[in-house]
Amino acid sequence: MSTFDAVDLIIAKREKQELSTEAIDWLIENYTAGVVADEQMSAMAMAILLNGMNGREIKDLTMAMIASGERLNFESLGVPTTDKHSTGGVGDKITLPLAPLVAVFGVAVPQLSGRGLGHTGGTLDKLESIPGWRANLSNQEMTKQLAEVGAVICAAGSGLAPADKKLYALRDVTGTVEAIPLIASSIMSKKIAEGTGSLVLDVKVGSGAFMKDFARARQLAEVLVQLGKDAGVNTSALLTDMSTPLGLKVGNALEVEESVDVLAGGGPSDVIEITVALATEMLNLAGVKDVDVAAALKDGRAMDKWRAMISAQGGDPEAKLPVAKETQTVVAESDGVISELDALAVGLASWRLGAGRARKEDPVQFGAGVTLHAQLGDTVKKGAPLYTLHTDEPGRFARAAETIAKAYKIETQAQVTRKLILDRISN
Amino acid sequence: MSTFDAVDLIIAKREKQELSTEAIDWLIENYTAGVVADEQMSAMAMAILLNGMNGREIKDLTMAMIASGERLNFESLGVPTTDKHSTGGVGDKITLPLAPLVAVFGVAVPQLSGRGLGHTGGTLDKLESIPGWRANLSNQEMTKQLAEVGAVICAAGSGLAPADKKLYALRDVTGTVEAIPLIASSIMSKKIAEGTGSLVLDVKVGSGAFMKDFARARQLAEVLVQLGKDAGVNTSALLTDMSTPLGLKVGNALEVEESVDVLAGGGPSDVIEITVALATEMLNLAGVKDVDVAAALKDGRAMDKWRAMISAQGGDPEAKLPVAKETQTVVAESDGVISELDALAVGLASWRLGAGRARKEDPVQFGAGVTLHAQLGDTVKKGAPLYTLHTDEPGRFARAAETIAKAYKIETQAQVTRKLILDRISN
Repeated sequence: MSTFDAVDLIIAKREKQELSTEAIDWLIENYTAGVVADEQMSAMAMAILLNGMNGREIKDLTMAMIASGERLNFESLGVPTTDKHSTGGVGDKITLPLAPLVAVFGVAVPQLSGRGLGHTGGTLDKLESIPGWRANLSNQEMTKQLAEVGAVICAAGSGLAPADKKLYALRDVTGTVEAIPLIASSIMSKKIAEGTGSLVLDVKVGSGAFMKDFARARQLAEVLVQLGKDAGVNTSALLTDMSTPLGLKVGNALEVEESVDVLAGGGPSDVIEITVALATEMLNLAGVKDVDVAAALKDGRAMDKWRAMISAQGGDPEAKLPVAKETQTVVAESDGVISELDALAVGLASWRLGAGRARKEDPVQFGAGVTLHAQLGDTVKKGAPLYTLHTDEPGRFARAAETIAKAYKIETQAQVTRKLILDRISN
Repeated sequence: MSTFDAVDLIIAKREKQELSTEAIDWLIENYTAGVVADEQMSAMAMAILLNGMNGREIKDLTMAMIASGERLNFESLGVPTTDKHSTGGVGDKITLPLAPLVAVFGVAVPQLSGRGLGHTGGTLDKLESIPGWRANLSNQEMTKQLAEVGAVICAAGSGLAPADKKLYALRDVTGTVEAIPLIASSIMSKKIAEGTGSLVLDVKVGSGAFMKDFARARQLAEVLVQLGKDAGVNTSALLTDMSTPLGLKVGNALEVEESVDVLAGGGPSDVIEITVALATEMLNLAGVKDVDVAAALKDGRAMDKWRAMISAQGGDPEAKLPVAKETQTVVAESDGVISELDALAVGLASWRLGAGRARKEDPVQFGAGVTLHAQLGDTVKKGAPLYTLHTDEPGRFARAAETIAKAYKIETQAQVTRKLILDRISN
């Protein structure tokens, strides 16, 4: 392997130069090994954030992060595999009904998920509200569950892309999170190392998402899809709206509750629409076409898979979910139409009620969160419940209430159109 | 004191926002205390390098670095004080004859100096080649020597601008050295904390200098002079040429030797010209005008001060200086005029011969370096000595010879004009 000097590489990126494949390999290998120091990598991350990377550099960065750890392989299952990654949003519980729904059609879903940080929730935090359910599986357990149930949602093991884990934690404390080359390589290194045969990216756009504007979200989606293609993973992306929350429930157990509603053939239409669209996309990429996806939600097949999936990981699908000790319901002050309902404000309110964490090591309150009694575009009556706040600690109500109040605009007359799927990118 | 979040401040600078006085104070205080981590400060340094700082921010950064440690005060001496700082060059031994020369005229010179890193030498390394001389003085010893001799060249104590020491070491390993706000605050925090009443900056321009081009050097000079003015230190700057080495000798003991030649009324004309110009500037700022500076080099008064200054710090001004174990002389291959003699190549050759250090903890070879037998613009004869390489380790000759060979261009006919002082900035 060629040898480089970390300072020379930082200066090259600082001066807007391209880094060679060998240089990127050296950098990531030596950062993982602790030879390149955190303070050097954070200066590099800032230089990448401000000066960018071209497609070849992003690909090399992703491949170097994959090479830093182990790669899973599910070819022995003998069935196609597919996975979905969402860039994160408010009320985005889609993974929960989606994984069992896709598995109904004989395509295995090896879904490695994360925990929430900041105002967006984490899939593992949500599922942990189910009594007995455990997130950590060995590679053998994961393979066995995929063979027997067809779907697994669990934590990524520490052996997968360790360079990404180290760099992600560093970016979080050094103001270098929001760089497309770093976001894209972080997402795709984990998903490619995970060994899925195909992948659908749900790139969220709007106030509640990482990417606030459409152009930047589209740019990220294109980079992600190209990385998948380069690595031989059949990949596409849907750009979906995150300017207003998905569904009526935001919080850990609250989102499990709503997911179970959808699996039981009910639930809010926006959650159903996104779930069906993503399932259809995943099945298409995996080679399963012309199936009636929505029917599997109505006839109980997806619910059966859900129960099997939860049980396989020690969870009790029949158990009562945790509820918050205290609730506070706010009513509409006037008659009208909800013409604005801001995702970020609702997400922050839920976070402040205890559903999210400020630091990685903090616990979450399973019952905390927000239930909306009406969505964007709905008509409300003066005095009727508008939303309910849930928390174990009533001292949290005041700030959360102040935050969520800013989410709403209610007008006597308004024409509201909501488009959920904004674009599709494929290669 | 207001409280801030390090990540918010990094993001603000990343997004090209101004940092408030309170934010900069908080950042430097908490970086010095270890609350803001090295990896956060290096991301901030990269953001400052790429996005800049305005004059107010640079002033606040400088003041915050001064506030991180102690400030010296020499008002009790009852005489004006002055100092010089050079941004560093090849063969730049000017501090050595300059400090005693200025002291001849009753102005005290409290010169805190540093060690060399990379291809530019360090004043302390040069003086340590004098047997017995010691760089570390207590504040009391420094004050006593200023009162009795009038000039002192010593190492800055660890109590002076500790934030700068920490940040300087960090910048060195994170590719964030070349930022004007960081260079300027580093230089000026030490000089202002040192307590000098006036200050002349020798901002070097050219291949052998930090600043390769005139425009950037002038920009740095303007920032430095403004910082001095803001802190109540009478400050000016000379922009001087560093495209070719100063004098004929480059290396530690070799430069002491040439400095003693100048103090004895001889020496190369370029070294004399710069020394006299800087001494005149320093004396003017300190209120001493219309004196014959050059005469004090000719009549032995500067030499007497030099001897007193060296003796006061334990050095023996009569002792034989260290010489390298091996030398290698290269002769001119043709008759002609030296139309190019590149400072950087000569500096790198000297460094490779052992005069400089690659890491802070490395020792230097006192006798190592380069002696030039002709300067830029001189006529040379085929077969006559062009330069001599000096080292204790003959294994170093080959790479040094290869490096220095690139420094020269010899043409049969050439008109070479050399301008030493390029500009003067004052407020």
